[in-house]
Amino acid sequence: MTSPMFDRIALIGIGLIGSSLAQVIRQEGLAGHISVSTRSEATLARAEELGLGDSYALDAAEAVDGADLVILCVPVGAYESVAKWIQPVLKPGAILTDAGSTKGSVVEAVMPHVPKGVHFIPGHPIAGTEQSGPDAGFPALFQNRWCILTPVEGTDPLALEKLSAFWRACGSDVDTMEPDHHDRVLAIVSHLPHIIAYNIVGTADDLETVTKSEVIKYSASGFRDFTRLAASDPTMWRDVCLNNKEAILEMLSRFSEDLASLQRAIRWGDGDKLFDLFTRTRGVRRSIIEAGQETDAPDFGRIKTEPQSRS
Amino acid sequence: MTSPMFDRIALIGIGLIGSSLAQVIRQEGLAGHISVSTRSEATLARAEELGLGDSYALDAAEAVDGADLVILCVPVGAYESVAKWIQPVLKPGAILTDAGSTKGSVVEAVMPHVPKGVHFIPGHPIAGTEQSGPDAGFPALFQNRWCILTPVEGTDPLALEKLSAFWRACGSDVDTMEPDHHDRVLAIVSHLPHIIAYNIVGTADDLETVTKSEVIKYSASGFRDFTRLAASDPTMWRDVCLNNKEAILEMLSRFSEDLASLQRAIRWGDGDKLFDLFTRTRGVRRSIIEAGQETDAPDFGRIKTEPQSRS
Repeated sequence: MTSPMFDRIALIGIGLIGSSLAQVIRQEGLAGHISVSTRSEATLARAEELGLGDSYALDAAEAVDGADLVILCVPVGAYESVAKWIQPVLKPGAILTDAGSTKGSVVEAVMPHVPKGVHFIPGHPIAGTEQSGPDAGFPALFQNRWCILTPVEGTDPLALEKLSAFWRACGSDVDTMEPDHHDRVLAIVSHLPHIIAYNIVGTADDLETVTKSEVIKYSASGFRDFTRLAASDPTMWRDVCLNNKEAILEMLSRFSEDLASLQRAIRWGDGDKLFDLFTRTRGVRRSIIEAGQETDAPDFGRIKTEPQSRS
Repeated sequence: MTSPMFDRIALIGIGLIGSSLAQVIRQEGLAGHISVSTRSEATLARAEELGLGDSYALDAAEAVDGADLVILCVPVGAYESVAKWIQPVLKPGAILTDAGSTKGSVVEAVMPHVPKGVHFIPGHPIAGTEQSGPDAGFPALFQNRWCILTPVEGTDPLALEKLSAFWRACGSDVDTMEPDHHDRVLAIVSHLPHIIAYNIVGTADDLETVTKSEVIKYSASGFRDFTRLAASDPTMWRDVCLNNKEAILEMLSRFSEDLASLQRAIRWGDGDKLFDLFTRTRGVRRSIIEAGQETDAPDFGRIKTEPQSRS
């Protein structure tokens, strides 16, 4: 029998990401021991009920003690205090990584507290659903998704390769890039979409002339798509906004500029301009489907289509 | 054997909506004869290959001749010319309706051309997918969706009831409201979401610092959700923007105002404000799921979740 990739993996935080990691680690036999930590007693008890780990601790340091892979799966706003807390028990040679949605701020918050000999390699699996908590996790979450690693200068190539192999074993493809570039990419593909979704749902919720009941009844005409992202975890998204401010503000400003121009085309009845934009955007979805990052079923496959038998 | 609800139903336009109507009309036996018209030869030939109707005509007047139900399923920008064209053959007692996304402009464009004795009742089934053309249609499209009718003053109650019964037979629930109110409701639940989706996909496509390939690879982190609406039919959506200008501009202005306030909260690090908004929007999705207008599967059911067997 081959030995597992890691003797002991510590998961700090056991929400959607932590729980999914625990399940795929178990399924693929990647760890001799999975230690789980979260500061909420109820969540820890639930993780234990679900059998997600081999040991459970409210104290992150207890879970980290002796681990050769430590993965932070808590909202990025909690990183600095966790890093300080586990610092004394991080063992030389261990890899410390994370699954957070921002990377520049993570380097800033964690780096000063990483002991010599510990390999700190920030990471971000581009995977998730709108649900949260340990019950939301499932082992296939990372399948065919990308995981971005943002190694800092001087990172040990062997540790980087080992962490990459870990993510590939979880079903993901691995890319590496600079933390700042990651933050700009994610600002447009993830952070802006979430902020826009939260905003439009808020706008609809505030109307006086259209009732909430009408918004809900007729939501299948487009609105409901946005409510999925807008149902994501509030703590996680607050922390993303606070920790990727610069890139988000840049993307927001571009978005608003483009929207003002589109609004002007609507006001002045510039049909050609509208038609050009509405045509150009079609191709982007086709590319995403071809890249295997989206279903080709109409309406995300929500509707069961039963086409008439063809004559 | 009971006779069908209508002797002859004419479908003007045979895209997603017309094709779906043809199929559910056939399936439910709602017409003695289905006549199909579209001005594109290729589309008409495809509709005939699919066996969607009983007769096919490039000339809308030919399809409408003798029909007791006429449904306009073309982009709303084409309504006025179609209405003028079919005016001479609309028979007394016939119901003329449509499936367009705007209603105030439709009343304005069509009403002056409706002969005395013809019942003009504008309608809008709140159903669709991002796909278009006759191949995109399927008979279950209207199932459990709402259809909004916006009868004008003096509408014959019997004709209104007959059209309502038709939509119920297609699987829909029926609501009636004023055209202007419809346009305001749809501006927020459908038109604004589409415009925002088109806009954000355009913004992402224009970036210099993030490549198109990066946008596509990492789109599962949120962006891809928007590409569905932004893949909708450009002609239809150009016409919607041009024909519901006032309500759309009002909703856009509210959206931008709210976004400016959200942007300010991000700039100044107002975590509480962000958290409050991100929490409030969660409930809206729950209500939509409870109302049967959305799947409760995570990620729209795109991901097959295979949770670990519970211990």
